[in-house]
Amino acid sequence: MLFRQLFDSQTSTYSYLLADRGQAVLIDPVKEHLDTYLQLLSDLDLQLVMALDTHTHADHITALGDLREATGCNTGLGQESQTRCVSFNFHDGQSLAFGGRELRVLHTPGHTHDSYCFLLAARGRQPAWLFSGDTLLIRGSGRTDFQNGSARQQWSSLQRLLDLGDDTLVFPAHDYKGWTCSSIGEERRHNPRLQVANAEEYAALMDGQHLPPPRLLNVALAANRACGRL
Amino acid sequence: MLFRQLFDSQTSTYSYLLADRGQAVLIDPVKEHLDTYLQLLSDLDLQLVMALDTHTHADHITALGDLREATGCNTGLGQESQTRCVSFNFHDGQSLAFGGRELRVLHTPGHTHDSYCFLLAARGRQPAWLFSGDTLLIRGSGRTDFQNGSARQQWSSLQRLLDLGDDTLVFPAHDYKGWTCSSIGEERRHNPRLQVANAEEYAALMDGQHLPPPRLLNVALAANRACGRL
Repeated sequence: MLFRQLFDSQTSTYSYLLADRGQAVLIDPVKEHLDTYLQLLSDLDLQLVMALDTHTHADHITALGDLREATGCNTGLGQESQTRCVSFNFHDGQSLAFGGRELRVLHTPGHTHDSYCFLLAARGRQPAWLFSGDTLLIRGSGRTDFQNGSARQQWSSLQRLLDLGDDTLVFPAHDYKGWTCSSIGEERRHNPRLQVANAEEYAALMDGQHLPPPRLLNVALAANRACGRL
Repeated sequence: MLFRQLFDSQTSTYSYLLADRGQAVLIDPVKEHLDTYLQLLSDLDLQLVMALDTHTHADHITALGDLREATGCNTGLGQESQTRCVSFNFHDGQSLAFGGRELRVLHTPGHTHDSYCFLLAARGRQPAWLFSGDTLLIRGSGRTDFQNGSARQQWSSLQRLLDLGDDTLVFPAHDYKGWTCSSIGEERRHNPRLQVANAEEYAALMDGQHLPPPRLLNVALAANRACGRL
């Protein structure tokens, strides 16, 4: 399997290219990097079969619409999203196939009500890989104070992710400190957000943050509800 | 084996943490991130046995000295380097062991005369990994116009890297576009610097660039010759 992690330095966003047997998936692609994705797909002789967003992003504009226009790929967002221009809406428990592999879809509301993670199953000595969106970040978790976010729901979602097994590698949608990857075991032990005892303590922690709104909130949400095609 | 790629956004530098059986190596660590490295080593319960620089950097200050002071690790630079404060100087063909794995040392002069790459051998279905320093970048190569650089020597060094096999993954010391990883096959086919016919054409390409000096050149070189401990 081919794997590339790609970084947007303007918004500290990670996008992921996975490919198997010539079929590729892009997770959380960023509009400004459309040309990079198309070049990479061409260089690697890959057919893009799916472009997926883990949720409706509020900090950058998605490349889903542009990728569908350019490649004819399917585009997907969770069924709770208000975006009508994607090819399909995924839901919890679904499997999304590419080549001989598949991504299992986990609904993990909390950052937004349409937040999902994708799990690539372990194979041989390679552990499972979790694309954790803004639900689980490295030593952090996504804010829960807008877009129908809920700290209590996120607590439940995080508990579900912690059940995946300590070896599972974690690839988040953002990192602001230069970290690219973690594991469930590492986050279980060292993520300060996961050291609280229960949902109530977690909600107190999250609701006490009083963060400023994301810089691109209104622009990004409007654009992303049109699949980034304004 | 445990692997973490770490990014310094100020200088677009990648550092790498590899660990096996509790023993860790850091490649090209950046002084400003000392606390992050120490936290990560503690979180993951790792003993740092070596910190290595692929060459004497001109764009950031190394953490080698600080890591040796903090952890007692060995620090290494190539035998051509003018830095006297490291624990040891490595040379072409040497193997540097950590846990049950080892890094093979390849002298790849050209960016500087003390430029090296490190190769982690393939194991099972995992291909070999090349830590390519500033010799081979993703769709590029390191400049050759200072610090005893030589475009002709770099051409020879790049030919040697191309012999490693197409599956070999390439992890460079820098990327300025958000790319984190490539492969020898991908670079052989798509790196514009590798599409020229011979050393002469390569030298004409590199020598025709007329780049401004790195912003931190004098500061970084002076600091790095003291292992970053000024």
